[in-house]
Formats: sequence, structure tokens, C-alpha cells
Amino acid sequence: MVESLSGDARAAARALSGASTVAKDAALRAAAARLRAEQAAILRANAEDVARARGESAAFVDRLTLTSSRIDAMARGLEEIAALPDPVGETIAAWRRPNGLEIAQVRVPIGVVFSIYESRPNVTADSAALCLKTANAVLLKGGSEAQATNRAIAAAFRTEVEAAGLPPAAVQLVEGGREVTRGLLKRDDRIDIVIARGGETLKHTILEESRIPVVKHFEGICHLYVDESADLAMAERICLNAKVQRPSVCNAIENLLVHEAVAPTFLPRIAAALRAHRCALRGDAASRALVPDLEPATDADWDTEYLDLILSVALVPSLDAALAFIARHGTGLAEAIVTEDYAAARRFLAGVDAAAVFVNASTRFTDGHEFGFGAEVGISTNRLHARGPMGLRELTTYKYQVQGSGQIRA
Amino acid sequence: MVESLSGDARAAARALSGASTVAKDAALRAAAARLRAEQAAILRANAEDVARARGESAAFVDRLTLTSSRIDAMARGLEEIAALPDPVGETIAAWRRPNGLEIAQVRVPIGVVFSIYESRPNVTADSAALCLKTANAVLLKGGSEAQATNRAIAAAFRTEVEAAGLPPAAVQLVEGGREVTRGLLKRDDRIDIVIARGGETLKHTILEESRIPVVKHFEGICHLYVDESADLAMAERICLNAKVQRPSVCNAIENLLVHEAVAPTFLPRIAAALRAHRCALRGDAASRALVPDLEPATDADWDTEYLDLILSVALVPSLDAALAFIARHGTGLAEAIVTEDYAAARRFLAGVDAAAVFVNASTRFTDGHEFGFGAEVGISTNRLHARGPMGLRELTTYKYQVQGSGQIRA
Repeated sequence: MVESLSGDARAAARALSGASTVAKDAALRAAAARLRAEQAAILRANAEDVARARGESAAFVDRLTLTSSRIDAMARGLEEIAALPDPVGETIAAWRRPNGLEIAQVRVPIGVVFSIYESRPNVTADSAALCLKTANAVLLKGGSEAQATNRAIAAAFRTEVEAAGLPPAAVQLVEGGREVTRGLLKRDDRIDIVIARGGETLKHTILEESRIPVVKHFEGICHLYVDESADLAMAERICLNAKVQRPSVCNAIENLLVHEAVAPTFLPRIAAALRAHRCALRGDAASRALVPDLEPATDADWDTEYLDLILSVALVPSLDAALAFIARHGTGLAEAIVTEDYAAARRFLAGVDAAAVFVNASTRFTDGHEFGFGAEVGISTNRLHARGPMGLRELTTYKYQVQGSGQIRA
Repeated sequence: MVESLSGDARAAARALSGASTVAKDAALRAAAARLRAEQAAILRANAEDVARARGESAAFVDRLTLTSSRIDAMARGLEEIAALPDPVGETIAAWRRPNGLEIAQVRVPIGVVFSIYESRPNVTADSAALCLKTANAVLLKGGSEAQATNRAIAAAFRTEVEAAGLPPAAVQLVEGGREVTRGLLKRDDRIDIVIARGGETLKHTILEESRIPVVKHFEGICHLYVDESADLAMAERICLNAKVQRPSVCNAIENLLVHEAVAPTFLPRIAAALRAHRCALRGDAASRALVPDLEPATDADWDTEYLDLILSVALVPSLDAALAFIARHGTGLAEAIVTEDYAAARRFLAGVDAAAVFVNASTRFTDGHEFGFGAEVGISTNRLHARGPMGLRELTTYKYQVQGSGQIRA
């Protein structure tokens, strides 16, 4: 199964690499229409999965469950991807050498993508669409809990890929247990990149096993630093947004650093505002001296991604101390400062090593859509190939096309 | 040792990331001067290594041996790197979002580079310089055969790094046996990228062991395809250049494909020319029918990187057959066509999946210097992060700097 899945994917990738934008977009729009047309069948399949999920948490069942409007949202997602510019064939740079050689660096598909994810069945349609748009063949390994739903979605998608004259093996669902996944992770001769979404355990297991480069979406321990020169009303707005607007995502903040000069004013105020949003606060000794009813923060708190309405607060005596704190506890995803001081803003932008560094804006903007990429493949915590929000371009690589008139090397 | 080497490198990388171009370039020029000044000591150290290499092949001893002029070339290499533009801080792209957020994608150092190589001691100076220029800390693991020489070169380099006020641990020589290398290859928390140069066995071992992304420089099985419309005089010049100008390198061709329509004219002619350069020729049945004294090519020949004056020749009935042959036997490094036909050139450029695809030019141009990058880190056979010739830019990653005026996410 490993052999045929990966071999068929490799062959499909080759055939797909020359596909026209017109053909790919037509397939995407037709797949959207088919998802809507086959809504009843997809909902029936989903009901099977949901029935098997009895006993799981309400959040788990909610992630798994499709509705008519969720299927429509999935279909609209496909149409939006069809409407985006095609990155394949884009010239990144081109120049002429003194000997007359003309060199162009041109975007091409990566090849075969192995997408591993859990629960949400919309990822099946979404991953298939992003890969088809970028002419990558994709192997989709969703969670077993969504098997019937994923089958129905992938089958609808494949039907339209084939109808558009594109290789149906461009989109393959990986069935079978862990041995199949493990086997595929060894096939660096056939698969070019692994994209892992889902729980930390899943991702660590993949990293252990994989011989193929893995795009990681690791935890985000993000900080907001309120500088001594901050506009405190702005700091309050940004802090609330970064923490409570959607606490369950990687670009929400976990730690708040406050310059000790403004802490006596700011801390009681933000504590009250956060509590009004039912957000629990934990503090270091200095912040608890200012807001006595804060729970004490333990050492572990500074390195914990709560993904919940909990925020840890520490006072810092300087920007340098804030930078050192972030270097120690940050995971390199997104960090923000609120400041009115020009030099502080510049030093923060330069000094913080993270995929996205913000001045006077919420870390929640760390997102492909918010960055203007049109689509989001994920948010990479890798340093190489793609860092931070990934759009369609990040599903491509490049080749050099060199045109000459008989040049030879001296 | 693994702990301290990797920990010191990580700390140095952090300190180095803010270094000015002026300081880095001054250190590089001073290191060049010191290599020249300490020539006698470096040559003495090298003589020790060469003495230990008694019994090795002449080529091995030659790669290992330094001379006054080779040390001068090494020093000039550092001065050339100092003179290049600094990629760190370069803005790759910048745009404003409808909500007023200003996003800039800015080049930053990768972090800690682990460079593993064999024999040639000039790689020690070269790797140290390329990494210092890009503000990456580097761990240098040269072959044990060049240990004394590498120590002398690295010590000279470090002295000037320190004198320039930069962290000396920015350049560290890895001593100790395989266990140290193995241990370092597991430290993906401390090391960001491995660059491997040297024998295939070395590189495969690294790939097996490493948890860190590895930039591979794998074998190049490169083809030249002589189309039916080719200018045969040009084809002859390019074929000779691509095969005999320097057969020992990855971008030299190993297989020659000739359209059967021009083979009766071209094959006897190129066979004579190659033989005049003492290049052995092996052919398929069809080419042996035209040039009877060709040695027969076996199946293995099409997949062998000779790195020597041997070329295998096959006739093909069409461009499509040439594309299929290349897809099967090429390793994705560099491929070339000689043609006067517009459509054939376009189809070859689009249809060949390789880091560099040439029309009417020699594959030997697949090189950082020839591409105009000023320096060459290597030629990557990876598809991700860097593909093909790597310059200084390929030793960087990026971060997004986002500037706002209080924006929050809706």
C-alpha cells in the first residue's frame, strides 16, 4: 500500500506539474459544486463518524460534526482558492550574466505533499484544494475518527479532478493504520514534504519517524510587552484582543510583560478588564504586590501554552529584560510590543527572533489571510523553507531556467 | 562536549545576529591578513597532516596539501566575501494591508550552522567566512586527516573574530570522534541546519542520523540532449565543455542523448572529438550501429555518476523520449538541450524537473559564481529551502516585521 500510494502520487505529481491554471481552477470549482450536490451523502457519512464518537468530549464531537452550512463553507473555500492567482510559473527573479546567459528563477510545484491532520474534516477539502492549485499531488491522512466523512469528501473531489482531465491520484486518501503512515514517512524518494497539523504528540511522533522534511506547526508561547512609553489604552485593547478574542489558537498570547514604571497604573486596569472576560491571571511576586489577588505564577507557567483563558504576568525593569525574557520563554512564533518610543520599537523589531514581530498590533494577525496571502496552508514554526504564515507560494519551490546561445564555461 | 559546543554556538548566534556589516567585514579582512601572516605556522601544521597521510592516493594528498599560493587564495576568498553585499537585513517584500498594518519580510540569519566536510582545508576558512558574513554561528567538522591544519586556520580566524568584538564561539571547530558528531546531529534544539559536503557515504550517514534539516549535495547525473534541430557545431562545443572541462564535478554530464535524425552526422563527429580528449564512450545498441567501436553501455551506466572521462550515449526518437529518459535517470541537478527549435526549447524548460535547466549552454554553469551570487555555499540537491547553487542569501531565513497603530483582529 505504501509502495502504490507513494508511486501513484509521484506519477500524478509529474503529470500534474504541467497542468494549466484553467484546468486546475475548473476542477476546484467543479469540486465545490459537487460537495454541495452530494451534501446529503456527505452528511450521512459524517453521521456514522459522529455516532462512533459517542463518549468523546463535546469539543471533539463539534470539530468532527458537519452541517449543511459547514459543507457550504468548505465549498466556498474551494471557490476562493480557485479565484487566487496561480503561483506556479511565477518568475521570482531574472537577470542576465555578462556572458549573455539569461537566468530566471521560476516557481514550480514541490511535488508530493503528505498531509497529516486530525478531526476537522474540512481540512480534507482544504488540503486537497491548496495542493491541486499548486500542482502538488497530495496524500491525505486524516484521523480515523473522521474516516467515513473524509472518504466521502475525497471521493467527490477526485471525481472532479478526473473529469477535468487531471490525474485522479493527485488526491489520495491514506487508509490503513500506523504502519502505513510510518512506511510513507520513510519514502523520501517519493514524498517531498510532510505537513503536520494536530496535537503535539502526533507532531512529535511524525518528527521522530520521518525522513522527509516536516513543516511543523508547533506551540506558540507568544508575549505582549507593554513598554514604559506605551499608550495604555492601546495596550489594553491589544492585550484583550491577543488573549481573549480566540484563546485556543497558537497566535494568542500566554505571557504579558509590563514595564515596572507603568505597572502600577496598567496592571490593575488590565486585570479588571481580563477578569471581565473571565480570563484567569497568574503573576510573579512583583505583579502580585500590585494586584494582590493574582494567583502566583509557577516557573512552569512561563513555558506553558494554555490555549485557554489564562494569562501569566511578569514585571520587567527594562526593554532589555523583556527581550531576554522573550528569548528564554518564547517559541519564536509571534511577539508584540506596545510602545510610543521610536528607539524601543526599532530595537524590538530587530532584537526579537520570531516568525512575526509586531509593534502596536495584536499577535492574532499572525495568519495567512490576515497577511493577505488569500489562503492559509498553516503557520510554520520551522526556520527553513517557510517561516510563519504559509500561503500558496510556500507550497512551491523553484528551478532555474537558463537560456543561452552556445555559452561554455571557461 | 556536545552540550557546550552547541550551547556556546546558540549563545554566539544570538549575539552575532545584531552585528553590523562593518564589524563582520572588518573581521573577515583581518582574518585574511592573519592567514597570510601566519602562513609559516599553518604550513607546519599542514605538513603534520600530510605526513600522516602517507599511503593515501595522490589525489587525496593533493586535496589535503596547502601551499603558500593556496593560503593566499584562501585569504583572497575571505576578502571577496567581505566585499559582497550583506544579505542580512535585506527586505524581500513589503506591503500595506487594508487595515493599515505594514508588513515587511526581512532576511535574518538562520542561526547555528553545522558544516561537515572532508579533506580540503580551505573549506574551513570558506565556511567560517560565509557563516560570519551572514551572522550565523558555525560548528566546523572537517575530516580527521586535516585536523592540525583546520585547527591552525580556525584559531587564526577566531582570533580576529574576537578582536572585532564579535563572539569567538561564532566559529568553533568540532573535535572528537563520531560520537560527538552523532550527538550534535540530534540537537535540533540548538542547531538549525547541517551542510554536508564530501563523499556519498558521509552524506548518507548524516541523513540517517540527523534530526536537523540537512542541505544535501548529492550526485549529479546530468544529461545533454542534442535535438534534431540542433546547431551541431554548438552541440559539439557544449558537449565537450560539459564533459571534459572538469569531469570530476557534479555539474559535468554523464549521459548524452542524441535525436536519431542527427545521430548519423553528429555521433561519429562527437565520438572523435571526445576521444581526442581521452574520454571513453559507452553506447546503446542504436548508437553502436553508427559508431561500431563504442563500448556497450549496461543498464547501470545510465545511473552512474562517473566523475571521470566516461560518457554514455543513447539515441532517442523524439524530444518526448529524451524527457522521459531524463525523468528516469536524471538526479534533478542540471539538464541541457541544444536546439534551434522554439517549441522544443520551451517544452524542455517547462518539462524538465531539475534545479537548473539549460537551453544552448553548458551544464557546467550550475555554480554560485557563474550564476552571479559572488560566493558559493554549495549546490543543493534538496527541493526545499535552497535548490541548486547556494549563495549568501541561502544562508539566511526571514522574519515578518509588522508595524501598526493599535490594530486588533476582528
